Amino acid sequence: MKFEIIAGDKATGLRAGKLYTAHGVLHTPVFIPSASLALVKHCNPEEVAQAQVQIIACNAYHLYLRPGEQVIAHAGGLHRFMGWKRPILTDSGGFQLFSLAQSREISEEGVRFKSHLDGSTHLLTPERSIEIQNALGSDIAMAFDECTPYPCDREYAERSLELTLRWARRSKAAHRERAHQALFGIIQGSVYPDLRIRSLEGTLEIGFDGYALGGLSVGESKEEMYAVLDAVVKRLPEDRPRYLMGVGLPEDLENCAEYGLDLFDCVIPTKNARHGTIFTSEGLLKIKNARYADDHGPLDPNCDCVACRKYTRAYLRYLFVAGESLGLRLLTLHNLRHYERVMEGLRDRARGANPR
Amino acid sequence: MKFEIIAGDKATGLRAGKLYTAHGVLHTPVFIPSASLALVKHCNPEEVAQAQVQIIACNAYHLYLRPGEQVIAHAGGLHRFMGWKRPILTDSGGFQLFSLAQSREISEEGVRFKSHLDGSTHLLTPERSIEIQNALGSDIAMAFDECTPYPCDREYAERSLELTLRWARRSKAAHRERAHQALFGIIQGSVYPDLRIRSLEGTLEIGFDGYALGGLSVGESKEEMYAVLDAVVKRLPEDRPRYLMGVGLPEDLENCAEYGLDLFDCVIPTKNARHGTIFTSEGLLKIKNARYADDHGPLDPNCDCVACRKYTRAYLRYLFVAGESLGLRLLTLHNLRHYERVMEGLRDRARGANPR
Repeated sequence: MKFEIIAGDKATGLRAGKLYTAHGVLHTPVFIPSASLALVKHCNPEEVAQAQVQIIACNAYHLYLRPGEQVIAHAGGLHRFMGWKRPILTDSGGFQLFSLAQSREISEEGVRFKSHLDGSTHLLTPERSIEIQNALGSDIAMAFDECTPYPCDREYAERSLELTLRWARRSKAAHRERAHQALFGIIQGSVYPDLRIRSLEGTLEIGFDGYALGGLSVGESKEEMYAVLDAVVKRLPEDRPRYLMGVGLPEDLENCAEYGLDLFDCVIPTKNARHGTIFTSEGLLKIKNARYADDHGPLDPNCDCVACRKYTRAYLRYLFVAGESLGLRLLTLHNLRHYERVMEGLRDRARGANPR
Repeated sequence: MKFEIIAGDKATGLRAGKLYTAHGVLHTPVFIPSASLALVKHCNPEEVAQAQVQIIACNAYHLYLRPGEQVIAHAGGLHRFMGWKRPILTDSGGFQLFSLAQSREISEEGVRFKSHLDGSTHLLTPERSIEIQNALGSDIAMAFDECTPYPCDREYAERSLELTLRWARRSKAAHRERAHQALFGIIQGSVYPDLRIRSLEGTLEIGFDGYALGGLSVGESKEEMYAVLDAVVKRLPEDRPRYLMGVGLPEDLENCAEYGLDLFDCVIPTKNARHGTIFTSEGLLKIKNARYADDHGPLDPNCDCVACRKYTRAYLRYLFVAGESLGLRLLTLHNLRHYERVMEGLRDRARGANPR
């Protein structure tokens, strides 16, 4: 997987790069919105692309359960199934098993779990996760890992990271060397910097196209997260993409990008939109607030998204209060566009257009 | 309100016309999809226009309760509030009071009812309905009427049509002569042809820009409905638009258009889409059917709608089963496009492009 660093901010670790995938070049730092179920909820692919989204994250766990990866393979892969022409990253299912599964049992072999849809029992292993991700045809697949919770005692974190390393080795072995699909390894170790370093060393030894930090933004403090980034990021190879999973708010992205991280994913812009919490250039806006009922201005006067160009706060609030999906769609597209502007600002800064 | 008959099918009463509104010319026969809450559910105005929809129907009852007609007036009217540039018809609220209100009490003055949203008590009168419709700024407003249920005994139907006539007179008196808004009268009388004729004569005497047949498609047999059309339509003035409310399936539209009716509205294409019942050139399709789970062809190979051009049965079924609004949106747009093709066929036939 070709990755070029094209610029860096001298005052910080912030860097801008180009990551070449089978479906086009990603300009990093890049934010990856959630499309777990093979869509950004309420939105169609054209709209998401119009918000300047470069890449989306789909989920192997969900798509294995429904519609089944074979249906998607028959369609010609995820891109054709859902009509999205730009890059796709697939998560391995590790995080969903941590956050969603009603009942799960972790063994050396993998994770046995009950489907959240119908209670049926399934086994996900590193080999199976990679097979599913291959069938989905994503541009970037993720190794199968255990995402440790917070708080997590040191002993558990240690045992877990060793298991994740063995699973990483099996993930890599199972990954057919497909010219079109990159495979990223995931570093675990909870909030313990020394365990994180051990996980990093083991993951580097196996060797992946890129490296992700998992198990953060799961409840730990910002200080604990930054302590992990301080310990780990500088030890990652300069020439490989670095992906911080599950982060975060716009200010988190700005702070974390300065560590020299390149990819970020998070449910916040889409999920918050669905709850009526809107990011604007003037701060947070709760669209449900009665003050917007008769406000015929745009959500954000400085935004060029479809919601801001074509609709008013009054109409968007009305749709939201009435529970209409069109409202959730427009609010989602706005938040996505806002996040893209944050990322554009970071890339501009890294390129020196906006030197600090 | 200018209305031109431009062609007619000699073998039947089918006719094609142009109805001039403040927001453009309607080519009749025309179908009017439901946008009761100031949107076609799940769809944005651009998409609805792309399905070739010419005019939508919004609802005075719903929009009075939420967001309140004053909010919409402050936005500059319904067109600007919701971003729809083509004509809008507003229903007076009579039908919703008949079909929705939990508890209502009809008097000479109007209808006192409890809101389905919060149980608060309201009074809708002919004057108030017209005032609301004026504030909404629709292109076509409807007189306030009582829509009789089915079955309906003759005595009740008779008393009711007389009340509707008195309300029609008050509606017309209340309707400010606004250059931009037409007002249609509504003929009632249940399934009794002689009562329908009495209602028609009274309504014609008051005089409206167009004439609607209400209280049909409420449970009566097709024979009863056609008996009413047989008695009434030929007695309507040739040079005024004729609107059949609440009808219907594509075959009903084809049959009823042959009576010389010009406008039709119905919830069927949108509501059925939301229930997964799809109209295609090859017949009805239930998208939930397991046979479509791995079917990667279009919904309808003969359709040019966005759902048929860009998505497959497998993806649409998947979205529908997963309860995703994107699926409901695409299915709605397909059914609307199908209905538009039915209407295009009728206009072509009337214009002699496809003479029988």
